[in-house]
Amino acid sequence: MFKYKKPIAILSQGKFGVLEAKTATCILRYRSDEVCAVIDSATAGQTCDDIVGFACSVPIVASVSDAADRGAATLLIGVAPQGGQLPPEWRGYITEAIERGWDIVSGLHTFLSMDSEFSMLAKRSGSSLIDLRLPPRDINIGSGRARDLGTRILMTVGSDCDVGKMTVTYELVEEARTRGIKTAFVATGQTGIFLSKWGVAVDAVPADFVAGATEAMVIEAARTSDLVVVEGQGSLVHPGYSGVTLGLLHGGVPHGMVLCHEVGRRAIKDMPNQEIPPMRDLIALYEHACEPIRPAAVTSIALNCFSLDEDACTQEIARTERETGLPATDCIRFGSAVLLDSFLERYPLR
Amino acid sequence: MFKYKKPIAILSQGKFGVLEAKTATCILRYRSDEVCAVIDSATAGQTCDDIVGFACSVPIVASVSDAADRGAATLLIGVAPQGGQLPPEWRGYITEAIERGWDIVSGLHTFLSMDSEFSMLAKRSGSSLIDLRLPPRDINIGSGRARDLGTRILMTVGSDCDVGKMTVTYELVEEARTRGIKTAFVATGQTGIFLSKWGVAVDAVPADFVAGATEAMVIEAARTSDLVVVEGQGSLVHPGYSGVTLGLLHGGVPHGMVLCHEVGRRAIKDMPNQEIPPMRDLIALYEHACEPIRPAAVTSIALNCFSLDEDACTQEIARTERETGLPATDCIRFGSAVLLDSFLERYPLR
Repeated sequence: MFKYKKPIAILSQGKFGVLEAKTATCILRYRSDEVCAVIDSATAGQTCDDIVGFACSVPIVASVSDAADRGAATLLIGVAPQGGQLPPEWRGYITEAIERGWDIVSGLHTFLSMDSEFSMLAKRSGSSLIDLRLPPRDINIGSGRARDLGTRILMTVGSDCDVGKMTVTYELVEEARTRGIKTAFVATGQTGIFLSKWGVAVDAVPADFVAGATEAMVIEAARTSDLVVVEGQGSLVHPGYSGVTLGLLHGGVPHGMVLCHEVGRRAIKDMPNQEIPPMRDLIALYEHACEPIRPAAVTSIALNCFSLDEDACTQEIARTERETGLPATDCIRFGSAVLLDSFLERYPLR
Repeated sequence: MFKYKKPIAILSQGKFGVLEAKTATCILRYRSDEVCAVIDSATAGQTCDDIVGFACSVPIVASVSDAADRGAATLLIGVAPQGGQLPPEWRGYITEAIERGWDIVSGLHTFLSMDSEFSMLAKRSGSSLIDLRLPPRDINIGSGRARDLGTRILMTVGSDCDVGKMTVTYELVEEARTRGIKTAFVATGQTGIFLSKWGVAVDAVPADFVAGATEAMVIEAARTSDLVVVEGQGSLVHPGYSGVTLGLLHGGVPHGMVLCHEVGRRAIKDMPNQEIPPMRDLIALYEHACEPIRPAAVTSIALNCFSLDEDACTQEIARTERETGLPATDCIRFGSAVLLDSFLERYPLR
């Protein structure tokens, strides 16, 4: 649990609307009531709706000072660049925000709280530097012990990173809670941690401890819930992140998985030579990888049809259902009921 | 590249001869000329041969002071406990060694150089604190680019951790060099790094960077070699370490794999409920996991027959060959020629 002052200005300088700014987009989707401004001089003055593609009345401004005029009290870094380093051109924005006494919330691999300049300034101005990705101490090695829980465990997995796993996870949790199911959201990345105020960014823990961190979270979450939904990370076919994905699977030991995919994505992001295998091969790969620790089935497909109109999206859903023999949907357009139903049908609550 | 004073005393207090002390055993096997003593009060006075099971004339002593009498100038932590934390009862040994001005070489997850007490003492006495597992800075995200290399890449993989992958890797490298092949040893764990004076303990880097670190090492190693042998870690069926294993596979993109197994090991170490699948299932799992990045075949089986006499070992090798249809051997008893031959037959040097 962490605290920050409100309202928030989201720093998205030069990146707003780009896939890398998915943190910004997700927070605008689910927590826009906390946000007073997006900072991006390239799109300043435009309306937020046009950029993110959904209803959003948050103004886009050009500077920290403009965001201050809107009352901002926290700066949230709204970008997840590959590798998670701080873009050097952002130091100025952060410095200015700290000097104004704002809290800073960051999901970068570069920890702001360990930056001597930032932390010196923060001490002086009274601002808190909150690193969402900072690993906890005292994680144990994973042992598969989450298998012993009575709670059902569902995990989102993906054909790639940045296909919408966090969003699908969030929607599944909301759907289950609407139905009165005691449901826990196990956040494993910076955006999910921000939204749920709890979690571990598993990609930032020393590699030996990914499964252990996941296992510990699932066990903790199961204490107060009948359904645990674990946010997946990366992809088993991503040359850089596959290890994180497998650690999550073996630590979280899901009963079933929802496979997330962005329609039209043919290769791994930024790696045109790394083709994404056909959906059925992906399903087989995920199920085979789970097998040694606890067999688990992919029970449905979550499509991200952001780039399609509704007709094309409906067609793509039908095509995917024929191809895989599994229910599919775009949960932003049509809700996540289908995804939850197919999981619960196969793995009823106990 | 790192430097330490010689000769070395290996700290193995209370653990010598136990599987956890594999670092000690490996260093005694391959670098006993650098070692003047093993510190373990429980076995002090016994001969080293009896404990490690091979010819070794290094004396076992009871204390740092006894090791000092033998001329020790460096203390090497010879144990890799699960989780890699420093056993608290060892602080005294390390403190005494630092006060004597010895260098300290450690492969623990707990970094001695970040311990304020140790580093203060070390500054005063002039000793170097060398953390073999300390991750390098500036690792990139893995991208599969080691696929473009002309060099052949061989990786050891395992049915579990602590089955002998490091030893098999070392033996394969020695065998290849004996044949005049320009061969690089890519060390990925503390013992391998100590032996080759180079490498990255991939289990200690932030999880996002395991593949990237491996990829960078393989590319660097390929610059001066025709064959790169990468030391594997963990196992795809280990509930705690599988993510590290997959990251290594996808970063190192081996052409072929040697599957290592300890005869008689039926379940994952310290996890009796986690059965090791049959050899053929393991092979299928490894090959399937590689497929999306670069297809790779298991070309032979390296058996660790430590617990068997020579007859039983020979029988076990024959049984494994029948079961898998692949060549097998125990390379400590019979050398690694068979393992290298079967790889080069399928993947000739280019």
